[in-house]
Amino acid sequence: MKFAFVVKSVASVVFSRKLIYNHSCTGKAVPFLITRKFQVLSSLRSQHEAPAWGSKKHKNKQKFKIQYINIMADPKIEEILAPFRAAVKEQGDKVRQLKESGALEIDLKKAVAELKARKKILEDKELELTPVEASFDRAKMEDLLKRRFFFDQSFAIYGGITGQFDFGPMGCAMKANMLSTWRNFFILEEQMLEVDCSILTPEPVLKASGHVDRFADLMVKDDKNGECFRLDHLIKAHLEKVKSDKKSTAELKWECEDIVIKLDGMNKEEMRTILRRFEMKAPLTNNELSDPMEFNLMFSTSIGPTGLVKGFLRPETAQGIFVNFKRLLEFNQGKLPFAAAQIGNSFRNEISPRSGLIRVREFTMAEIEHFCDPSDKSHPKFDEVRHVQVLLYSACNQMDGKAAEIVTIGKAVDDRIIANETLAYFMARIQQYMVKVGVDPKKLRFRQHMNNEMAHYACDCWDAECLTSYGWVECVGCADRSAYDLSQHTKSTGVRLVAEKKLPEPKTIDVVEVVAIKGTVGKSFKKEAKEIMEALSKLEPATVVEVEESLKTNGKYVLEIGTNSYTLTPDMLEVKRYQKTTYVEEYVPNVIEPSFGIGRIMYAIFEHNFKVRSDDGQRTYFSLPPVIAPLKCSVLPLSNNADFVPYIRQLSRDLTAVDVSNRVDDSSGSIGRRYARTDEIAIPFGITIDFDSLKEPHSATLRERDSMGQVRIPLKEIAGVVRDLSYGKMTWTDVEAKYPKFEQQETKS
Amino acid sequence: MKFAFVVKSVASVVFSRKLIYNHSCTGKAVPFLITRKFQVLSSLRSQHEAPAWGSKKHKNKQKFKIQYINIMADPKIEEILAPFRAAVKEQGDKVRQLKESGALEIDLKKAVAELKARKKILEDKELELTPVEASFDRAKMEDLLKRRFFFDQSFAIYGGITGQFDFGPMGCAMKANMLSTWRNFFILEEQMLEVDCSILTPEPVLKASGHVDRFADLMVKDDKNGECFRLDHLIKAHLEKVKSDKKSTAELKWECEDIVIKLDGMNKEEMRTILRRFEMKAPLTNNELSDPMEFNLMFSTSIGPTGLVKGFLRPETAQGIFVNFKRLLEFNQGKLPFAAAQIGNSFRNEISPRSGLIRVREFTMAEIEHFCDPSDKSHPKFDEVRHVQVLLYSACNQMDGKAAEIVTIGKAVDDRIIANETLAYFMARIQQYMVKVGVDPKKLRFRQHMNNEMAHYACDCWDAECLTSYGWVECVGCADRSAYDLSQHTKSTGVRLVAEKKLPEPKTIDVVEVVAIKGTVGKSFKKEAKEIMEALSKLEPATVVEVEESLKTNGKYVLEIGTNSYTLTPDMLEVKRYQKTTYVEEYVPNVIEPSFGIGRIMYAIFEHNFKVRSDDGQRTYFSLPPVIAPLKCSVLPLSNNADFVPYIRQLSRDLTAVDVSNRVDDSSGSIGRRYARTDEIAIPFGITIDFDSLKEPHSATLRERDSMGQVRIPLKEIAGVVRDLSYGKMTWTDVEAKYPKFEQQETKS
Repeated sequence: MKFAFVVKSVASVVFSRKLIYNHSCTGKAVPFLITRKFQVLSSLRSQHEAPAWGSKKHKNKQKFKIQYINIMADPKIEEILAPFRAAVKEQGDKVRQLKESGALEIDLKKAVAELKARKKILEDKELELTPVEASFDRAKMEDLLKRRFFFDQSFAIYGGITGQFDFGPMGCAMKANMLSTWRNFFILEEQMLEVDCSILTPEPVLKASGHVDRFADLMVKDDKNGECFRLDHLIKAHLEKVKSDKKSTAELKWECEDIVIKLDGMNKEEMRTILRRFEMKAPLTNNELSDPMEFNLMFSTSIGPTGLVKGFLRPETAQGIFVNFKRLLEFNQGKLPFAAAQIGNSFRNEISPRSGLIRVREFTMAEIEHFCDPSDKSHPKFDEVRHVQVLLYSACNQMDGKAAEIVTIGKAVDDRIIANETLAYFMARIQQYMVKVGVDPKKLRFRQHMNNEMAHYACDCWDAECLTSYGWVECVGCADRSAYDLSQHTKSTGVRLVAEKKLPEPKTIDVVEVVAIKGTVGKSFKKEAKEIMEALSKLEPATVVEVEESLKTNGKYVLEIGTNSYTLTPDMLEVKRYQKTTYVEEYVPNVIEPSFGIGRIMYAIFEHNFKVRSDDGQRTYFSLPPVIAPLKCSVLPLSNNADFVPYIRQLSRDLTAVDVSNRVDDSSGSIGRRYARTDEIAIPFGITIDFDSLKEPHSATLRERDSMGQVRIPLKEIAGVVRDLSYGKMTWTDVEAKYPKFEQQETKS
Repeated sequence: MKFAFVVKSVASVVFSRKLIYNHSCTGKAVPFLITRKFQVLSSLRSQHEAPAWGSKKHKNKQKFKIQYINIMADPKIEEILAPFRAAVKEQGDKVRQLKESGALEIDLKKAVAELKARKKILEDKELELTPVEASFDRAKMEDLLKRRFFFDQSFAIYGGITGQFDFGPMGCAMKANMLSTWRNFFILEEQMLEVDCSILTPEPVLKASGHVDRFADLMVKDDKNGECFRLDHLIKAHLEKVKSDKKSTAELKWECEDIVIKLDGMNKEEMRTILRRFEMKAPLTNNELSDPMEFNLMFSTSIGPTGLVKGFLRPETAQGIFVNFKRLLEFNQGKLPFAAAQIGNSFRNEISPRSGLIRVREFTMAEIEHFCDPSDKSHPKFDEVRHVQVLLYSACNQMDGKAAEIVTIGKAVDDRIIANETLAYFMARIQQYMVKVGVDPKKLRFRQHMNNEMAHYACDCWDAECLTSYGWVECVGCADRSAYDLSQHTKSTGVRLVAEKKLPEPKTIDVVEVVAIKGTVGKSFKKEAKEIMEALSKLEPATVVEVEESLKTNGKYVLEIGTNSYTLTPDMLEVKRYQKTTYVEEYVPNVIEPSFGIGRIMYAIFEHNFKVRSDDGQRTYFSLPPVIAPLKCSVLPLSNNADFVPYIRQLSRDLTAVDVSNRVDDSSGSIGRRYARTDEIAIPFGITIDFDSLKEPHSATLRERDSMGQVRIPLKEIAGVVRDLSYGKMTWTDVEAKYPKFEQQETKS
């Protein structure tokens, strides 16, 4: 079975791409893309960027419709799409061919741009043919999120800062529940080593990781007022305007189209040329614009009072794990594989943050670094997930113009679609977690990075993407980062970040070394003797042979240390040959990294669980799964009758005692209105104390949010039932089978 | 019963004080101290500052002995101390008298300095007379903390940064457990509103809170190499050296002593004079030193690409709650009292951080802001804590030279030692929490801020202090901050951060206002008319009467707006008088703030639970309570016999299924050695699978860490028993009563 999910927006869609540095979903660093000189087929993970949260413009742009289609269900559509798919495939094959033949980069780049153009046409066609199945009103959802303070802009009373959000009681509790579920699901279940590292990071660490040099976007400044613009956004917006201008010639329009498509692959100079050729000005002021400049996305500060120690707020949590590798390996008694994990905040100084929680300046990540032997990436628990079905959008399918496909994890590894068992195991676990916390499995796919977009050190990389009204949003990255990170830090510090393994059988190796004869060397070189001896001890075997040769042939060897030369004669040196047996072998572990962007997952959960009651368009709510619902249960007295008070208090205490978070709503308003209020904040269960509750045998009504079904339960049992429901040990169906349906109370006031 | 706890250190003790800005325990801001011009009796909460963590100097200085004395138990000691106590009291009374009579600040300051000197003599005497009861070896504890990676210096492979620490698996899990216990104990239990606000804070917010202007320490710089020194530290160290110089005259020594005592109360100029008079130089280089400068302790950065929006890393989490007050009040349906809480990281750019986790640059806080009506600070659950006994070191006792006293919370409020029920309720809860997570109740006291050290807006403030080898360390602050914070933000933003309450009965008030007659004002002033009408509508009643008077007497009124004057005539204005009935009253809520420094509490817990086995000085461990122990249970096969493997695996799965974190240790080494290893990381329970386990009925040995007692339990029951033990639903005594004691296994391999 094949599915394709597409997004249709009635607003104009501006595609957002990082130019120089491709920070993915969770914002993982993928350095060196700039050195590869070409880039991603960006439309695959296009994101619609809306204006700033809560702005007027923002509100006007919020009518979206998401359409889900099952293409296999409609062979007529497939028939129409066939030639478009074929065109993509043709070009995809061409790109493959060019790569195999080691073509020039410029030719490859052109071919990739063409491939992208064809993919865009295919996607537009898919969109055009898609029947509407469901509708989603983002403005309505955002209104609810703000009104009940799930989250909102930070420092709003001071005018606010874009790209920063405060989580209110409901958002905060939901986030805490997502994280504690994550901790149980990954750390406890897999016995990972959790760490909690510093946010403030000194410069050399991020120099080694590549962030200081490459974690940047291109921007231009308004020459007069200093306002900054992300260059790719600016060029796109300008060219779209030219394109839609009636006076533009067809040729000019085509050219604009062509530039927009190729923009992602362009370097600073190419973009500068376009900026000047089209004489672009600052959007509102029409002032001149500066030349493009690279803007590093890290927040910088000084550590300590001297102002000399430069530091940054970490752009990802991963580096904290890498620099602690030795301690962690030791903690794990030297054994591999093991995984370390970290939950914490990271920071990126986005040039123009937008799209609510999706592109922000401060965000919570949960990252896992699984360290393993590069020659063994199997996973002991792989069989437990072998049967799990995932929707995979492989690099191959992307090149072939095909849709994403549902396959089992086992088959994906057998067919070598996913590179290894460990990577595949984590992908299955990622999906299980996402679904557990409320992501709609029908709106979740794994998209493989194509060769072109993968950092050069990565062997394989998949993004878990969620379908939202902003398009497919990268929420979790899952990459095999090979030995890159540990090697980089070893290079920068001289500290060997390696592991040892026992050789299957002891290995005997031939050793050849040149040893200085202390007496003669010391006598000839005095103070410098020590340095000479050290230099000799470090010579490679090949050089030792050279030394031996030279002593024989020339009667001397000239050793160079830095700018100094020392002439050594046969009486100063002895060449030794012997055999050594080793039992262990050192190696640099590989890293497989699942990296979660908690805010993005949270946003996807909000969209996937936003509901409107069919009988009343104003009654909106979130059908969050109990495990992440901010509060599990509401406690409502039927009215403000004083007789209810002791029952309400006792019930709240009973619920708290069994770890069920709860909220008493004894405000005025009908029960119906109060239920609507608790539905809005996603409380899955509600208990009402009424006049029947006062009579023996004491009982109360329990209501479930999504079905609005109600049952009558003895007061003594009710806390236990809600606990079992909240922690997934009982379903609502079980409860309805066990207890009588509630119609209406018998006793009136 | 009276207790006094004193600290004796074999290392020289340097007292650390903040000069300008008194950031307490958790680092709460107590602005305006600088304006009060005098300061704290600092020796009361002296902290010993050790050299940087892990440095050689550090290790040499780590032999400490803590002595606990029950003074009442030894009337002889009290007899000796009596005259010293009397001397303190005499001076305390003098200070009180001066205050009452409104004496000059300079006289008061002198008297306070003298009081401090007398207190120091008293404390030294107490120390001298104290018999040793227990010993504590900090070097041994720190070795264990590093070796098993509870926490360690951040970025050590890059040379490390002082004042920053990474928590390894055990520290991280312990911290997570402390926080989740905190969340259950405060947020869930009291139904607080938890929020999660931004760390990056724009400048105006921290300008309003007082941090931009006053959150600073004085420092001097080495003129040549730029090294910075905290001025008070530098002066103290220099004068101590002069004092201990044999060549110094008795008079000079006395003077040094006097300056050190008065240092805390000195301003920048006074300290500059001392710096120059003693011709102090940079400690190592002997270079000249700069004049003192104020160094703001916040880390600053720029938000966004323009470089124009200045921001800081928050120095406390509280401000995030205050700026969200309106949203929170609305979420709470306009009702007061309510409490909001936040757990998160804060940052301070300490000039020279030391003392391990106690003075750091990046730290986790947990803060509560309880908002209430200033006229009603009672607490509905006060009766539940009335009986709780606390060790109070009241301001009064401090002035009188008396020791801290044990009293019940109820009596402390009745006797007005603690200002109000809500403050007292939180103090009781703070103590309950601290003891629950492992603080030794005998090493916990509440010290009241004296009038002099309290921020001018605070009504009452108590610090929960833990006794450690660094002295009494402030770990939690509990302050009544009155309406200060909300008022400040209202002043800065114009947004009224107020609550409403229903009046007991409607109130009728007389209104007098001057209204502009649109036609005539508009005609005369055109564009400016609107501004004039607005200004008129805002006039105070008294001014309205003035206007009326002026119109009558002079036939005109001159209205001034900024630098402009407008002459208004009787045809333009109408004075209206009428009555208005109001049913509600607006007020600025007061804030009671318990503020927890998680790292400091954690450090106290480490010290209070560090143990050495009596039979083996090398076997050290932490007796952490199960609720915060990083892992609850170890699972050990007796040997590496393959038959044990399936049992070990199943047991680990069973434990995980009932939320018991566990660790399998199947490494080689005797059971005894492996137990020692699990003791080191504070695992409270250990299960051993041996040859008897393989036989029907399957059973295993369960061992408890502190008593090292062992029982034999059926395999099926064991996970449940460990769960009940871990979550405090069963005690070890219960287990020993129920299951047979384990002596040795019957079956051998």
